[in-house]
Amino acid sequence: MRQPTDHSVLEELDRAECLRLIAGVSVGRVGFDDGQGPAVTPVNFALDGETVVFSTTLSGRLNRSLDTLFTDADVRIAFEVDRIDEETHTGWSVLLRGGARRMPEGERAPVEPWPDGDREAHIRLTPTEVTGRRLRSP
Amino acid sequence: MRQPTDHSVLEELDRAECLRLIAGVSVGRVGFDDGQGPAVTPVNFALDGETVVFSTTLSGRLNRSLDTLFTDADVRIAFEVDRIDEETHTGWSVLLRGGARRMPEGERAPVEPWPDGDREAHIRLTPTEVTGRRLRSP
Repeated sequence: MRQPTDHSVLEELDRAECLRLIAGVSVGRVGFDDGQGPAVTPVNFALDGETVVFSTTLSGRLNRSLDTLFTDADVRIAFEVDRIDEETHTGWSVLLRGGARRMPEGERAPVEPWPDGDREAHIRLTPTEVTGRRLRSP
Repeated sequence: MRQPTDHSVLEELDRAECLRLIAGVSVGRVGFDDGQGPAVTPVNFALDGETVVFSTTLSGRLNRSLDTLFTDADVRIAFEVDRIDEETHTGWSVLLRGGARRMPEGERAPVEPWPDGDREAHIRLTPTEVTGRRLRSP
C-alpha cells in the first residue's frame, strides 16, 4: 500500500526565491518549438538582472527556430532549472516563461559555454512568468 | 583569451546508448505547449520498452494541455533527461520527441511519483526521435 507519509511535499516558491535559487546554477534547459513540436535542450546560462541570457550555435535547432520563425521579434520560450536529489527525493525546480530574442549586434551573453565550438547566437529571455516548487521531506 | 583546450567535447549518442542512459534515471523533464507557449516540467518516469511513461495531476497544466487540446489523439511532446556534473563540466543529455497520449482507462504508468498528491493522468510517449549528446573532457 502507498504510504502518504513516505512522499515528499511540494511547496510553491515565490518569484524572489526562484531567482535566488537559479542564480547559483550554471545549466538550465530551454523549452522551445522548432516548428515540429516542443524541444528541450540544456544550455549554460547567466542571470542578468531578472533576465536569462545564454548563447547557442548559429546552425543549431534553437537558433534556427528563433531566426526563421520570429526574426527580430520575441519568441515565447520556457527556461527550466532544477536541483533534484535522487537519494533524498528533495530539491526544487523553477520555470521561467516569456519572450526571447537575439541580443543586438555587439552584445554578448556573459556566459562561457562548457562545450567546445562557437556559440555566436546570444539570446535574452525576459520572463513574464516565474514559478517554482520545492520538494521537501514530509 | 579563450583556451579551446579548456572546453569539453560534445559527441552525438546513438539511440541505443540514449535509451541505456536514461534507463538509470528517475526524473526527466516534459516539454509541451499549454496553449500559451512552451513549458517544461520535471516528472518521475519509467521506460516501458522504448516508450516513456509518467503520471501527472488531472488538474495540472500538463494534463490540461493533453486533455483540452488533443483529446484521444497524440500530442507532440518532448522529454529530456540529463546528468551534468557542474564540477567537471561533463555529462550527457538525451531528448525524446514524439506523440504522447493518455493511457487507456485501467492502465497505469509503473511509476511512484516522489511528491505527495494524486497523479491520476497516466501518459505514454512513443518517441519517433531519440537524440543525445555526451559532454566529455577534451
